[in-house]
Amino acid sequence: MKAIIIDIDGTLTDKSRRLDLAATAVIRKLDIPVILASGNVLCFVKCATKLIGTSDIMIAENGGVISNGFDGPVNIYGDRERCMGVLEMLRAHFELEELDAADRLSDVALRRNFDIEAARHILANKEIMDVELVDTGFAVHIKSMDVNKGTALLEVAALMGLDSGDIMAIGDSSNDIEMLRAAGLGVAVGNANPALKSIADMVTSGRYGAGVVEALEYASKSSLW
Amino acid sequence: MKAIIIDIDGTLTDKSRRLDLAATAVIRKLDIPVILASGNVLCFVKCATKLIGTSDIMIAENGGVISNGFDGPVNIYGDRERCMGVLEMLRAHFELEELDAADRLSDVALRRNFDIEAARHILANKEIMDVELVDTGFAVHIKSMDVNKGTALLEVAALMGLDSGDIMAIGDSSNDIEMLRAAGLGVAVGNANPALKSIADMVTSGRYGAGVVEALEYASKSSLW
Repeated sequence: MKAIIIDIDGTLTDKSRRLDLAATAVIRKLDIPVILASGNVLCFVKCATKLIGTSDIMIAENGGVISNGFDGPVNIYGDRERCMGVLEMLRAHFELEELDAADRLSDVALRRNFDIEAARHILANKEIMDVELVDTGFAVHIKSMDVNKGTALLEVAALMGLDSGDIMAIGDSSNDIEMLRAAGLGVAVGNANPALKSIADMVTSGRYGAGVVEALEYASKSSLW
Repeated sequence: MKAIIIDIDGTLTDKSRRLDLAATAVIRKLDIPVILASGNVLCFVKCATKLIGTSDIMIAENGGVISNGFDGPVNIYGDRERCMGVLEMLRAHFELEELDAADRLSDVALRRNFDIEAARHILANKEIMDVELVDTGFAVHIKSMDVNKGTALLEVAALMGLDSGDIMAIGDSSNDIEMLRAAGLGVAVGNANPALKSIADMVTSGRYGAGVVEALEYASKSSLW
């Protein structure tokens, strides 16, 4: 392995989104680059990157935004305008509360206070095939179907001159599925949802940050880097 | 003491802006509210507040922005338009690089790559009395003279129904001077600049986060809360 991509919320943080300090300490001692990947906006990922001390390549908005450096170019992959159109359509059926609207560049994030399955049925009935609803456990995203943390992993691998098989990925949620599939070693932490666990190469017994520590120690002991 | 306001960069972080994990652990064990105060933008302070786990009252942009809750009202105190006017005036003399321009609500932040004293002389010669230049060690801010972390401390005290004398404040930089003066107990960490140390009630021997730990342990042992 030559790089590690780690999800933030629910993986490096606990349920209340507090940073796991033990996992942070272990990450700081690693000799290979660690890249953060989140469904949150770029400003949040930049802050987490500074405070944790990870690589300045950053994945935000579930892969819809990749920044190469703090002041470097920002690439946008999702189609926010299209997602806004679907949002307006869903507003006819649900009371929806947008999150971080001013900062989002590629998708739409909503508070998790509506019937997501019912909304998915409406999209299916209308034969909307280019946009999907993803529930990260922290927000529901309306996002372009062909953009995810897995496509972001491939972009980041190309940026770094690495093969995707050289990258280890760690996550907890269904929005991490494509990322774990694209990685050489895909790890689900103990609190991960069943869908992610079922496709992971490794499932830790530790939950949240303790799972990250377990995975990193396993990889170190197995001389994976 | 009934609340603590703590600066982020250079106080809770090291020089490279990595979060001090020991100070974070001590903060999480406290039974009284901790409020973060930064020269950085609100989005950064919100992220730091989530990751550290502090109170959801937040001070950003050196007191120019106060948010009462993550989704609560945001009060803006500085006059960004006036600061932008001064920026344009200074551009005639220096090559200036704005930081976080899209996210700033009350002031202007610049990279620290120009002669700040020379710029101050220009403002003085033009008899500009309502706007000042403040160097936090991480950025130079063009900000309204009558807005600072001290005025923010008074606003936060009012929001919380506290007397400013009930608040402990910890900082490292000249932009923390008014905050330490307004607080009941003002603490400068060991790496603080001389001007801040000279007005502080207490100067820790520990630098950065170690100074925060020292101050909080002193306050606990002295039964200040």
